[in-house]
Amino acid sequence: MTQPLEAVRWTNDAIEYVDQRMLPREALVRRACTVDDIEEAIKTLAVRGAPCIGVFGAYGIARLRAMLSDDRAFAAAAARIREARPTAVNLAWAVDRVLASQDMLAEARAIHREQQIIDARIGEAAVSLFAHKATVLTHCNTGPLATAGGGTALSAILAAANAGKSPRVFVDETRPLLQGSRLTYYELTQAGVDATLIVDGAAALTMERKGVDLVAVGADRIASNGDTANKVGTYGLAIAAAHHRVPFYVAAPRSTFDFALRSGSEIRLEERAPGEVTSFGDTPIAQEGARVFNPAFDVTPGHLITAFITEYGLVQPPYADSIPDLQWRPRIAEVLP
Amino acid sequence: MTQPLEAVRWTNDAIEYVDQRMLPREALVRRACTVDDIEEAIKTLAVRGAPCIGVFGAYGIARLRAMLSDDRAFAAAAARIREARPTAVNLAWAVDRVLASQDMLAEARAIHREQQIIDARIGEAAVSLFAHKATVLTHCNTGPLATAGGGTALSAILAAANAGKSPRVFVDETRPLLQGSRLTYYELTQAGVDATLIVDGAAALTMERKGVDLVAVGADRIASNGDTANKVGTYGLAIAAAHHRVPFYVAAPRSTFDFALRSGSEIRLEERAPGEVTSFGDTPIAQEGARVFNPAFDVTPGHLITAFITEYGLVQPPYADSIPDLQWRPRIAEVLP
Repeated sequence: MTQPLEAVRWTNDAIEYVDQRMLPREALVRRACTVDDIEEAIKTLAVRGAPCIGVFGAYGIARLRAMLSDDRAFAAAAARIREARPTAVNLAWAVDRVLASQDMLAEARAIHREQQIIDARIGEAAVSLFAHKATVLTHCNTGPLATAGGGTALSAILAAANAGKSPRVFVDETRPLLQGSRLTYYELTQAGVDATLIVDGAAALTMERKGVDLVAVGADRIASNGDTANKVGTYGLAIAAAHHRVPFYVAAPRSTFDFALRSGSEIRLEERAPGEVTSFGDTPIAQEGARVFNPAFDVTPGHLITAFITEYGLVQPPYADSIPDLQWRPRIAEVLP
Repeated sequence: MTQPLEAVRWTNDAIEYVDQRMLPREALVRRACTVDDIEEAIKTLAVRGAPCIGVFGAYGIARLRAMLSDDRAFAAAAARIREARPTAVNLAWAVDRVLASQDMLAEARAIHREQQIIDARIGEAAVSLFAHKATVLTHCNTGPLATAGGGTALSAILAAANAGKSPRVFVDETRPLLQGSRLTYYELTQAGVDATLIVDGAAALTMERKGVDLVAVGADRIASNGDTANKVGTYGLAIAAAHHRVPFYVAAPRSTFDFALRSGSEIRLEERAPGEVTSFGDTPIAQEGARVFNPAFDVTPGHLITAFITEYGLVQPPYADSIPDLQWRPRIAEVLP
């Protein structure tokens, strides 16, 4: 598997990251040094993908601790990073884990390394779901750029490709920010996988006419009953998959499960600025000042999800049993040599 | 009701039309004089919307007849216009009707005038479907710009607004060509209707969280069993509406019904150029040369459609009976004073 870009990298004087807003035109590596830099990179989606934000936030806390000797200033800065995006569970989880550790940089590095191991295991767990030359549909970006590891749903697809299954992948462009056309298509073709772009509205027709065998997506937050917050468009895709009896898989590490939430109705959905919908870059595509409803995420109810693909293998219904069980599994890092 | 722009207009030396690719930034009126001009305006979607293409094509044939005295040259030119877009039934229908007439310009004018009457009747037929302050979701553009009359689905919404029902409308932006954000949002706000833009992928969440009471869309071709070809994205919307038990209405004049087709599987779906998906205007939004599946339309099976709103009132299931019956209704123009 080709891993074209390292999404996040620690250096002694900055956290380096790929500015994902410029891809695929330009692979610009930026450096975040201050709390403003770190918060801005997260808020503007220069760094994106729930696990990748977690890794970046973890390094961010380590960086701030090294810079700010005043405990109150550090606590305030850490709180700003923790709250930079509300829906992705990984950010708060990683920040809290680093804050609770003795050696913050070692802990951040551990989170990053564990992410890489976890993503590889997600890939392994998925391979048997793919028939030879399976046709797959995916949404948004869930590859190495999204996790700072091997990816979640894309890790699954890439693992199937590496196992010689030759999957054919339809990629939703994923409006408004086009993570599918800008990032996923790029990552798939870099890895030599057969990929075809579609507009989000073409997904149902693609399922019907192109023989889609399975849908694989990632997740930003998963409740104990299986209700899953993910990039807006996922819910409609799950409804269409159920209508066509196409299996619908969510690939996500345990850190994306929020065991405190009983259901998706407790998930706070982030709304983003109208400009994401009314313009592309500097090009206006709707009336200036147009009223927009721009939710970044939607919630797919657990009953529309065939199974979760995790680093512990497939998690299957009934989710009210299988998801809470995940809490008690040993940490991946601990069971490794 | 405000009608901001006349989509198509006959003049003695050209057919004037609004270049809909420039809206809402610019309301540019162009003039089509030659067969090349007419064909290009249709193929490039400068003129779009099935009924509007029909009216434009009808005037086009009248114009060509006036210009080309050689019968073979005229027949070849007329065939080019007739075939300029394959999915919309109205174009071939209007061209054939003009070709069969004694006075081609009079016939084209009659088609245009009838469209205006028909659209007004569609609006009247729809009013009772709207509760006070109903929340509506629509896709693509089905207003005056799309029909050269009052519109189909948008005529329904505007008629409800004129009847004091104060509908609230969510508008799918409608990728790839953004007819929703560029045209429908513009037409609704021009008419003083409460409109909110969403990306296509947000439609399912909008149904669930915003209390959508009904979905209203137009159509490009309808088979005898109710299967309906319309702008890509309609099928997914219909599946999501069924999932949420939201009534799903298709507003279309009789000329959009193709009584010769038994089902949607006989409808030829136009695929358009990848560039519509991979760039916006001159701005690339995906890798150059990316592989794209870009169907302009999809087919919604009749069983997902609550009713058709036509100039003859509501057409309800079972469609195998009610749609063929439409053929025998008197022509609207004939029953008018």
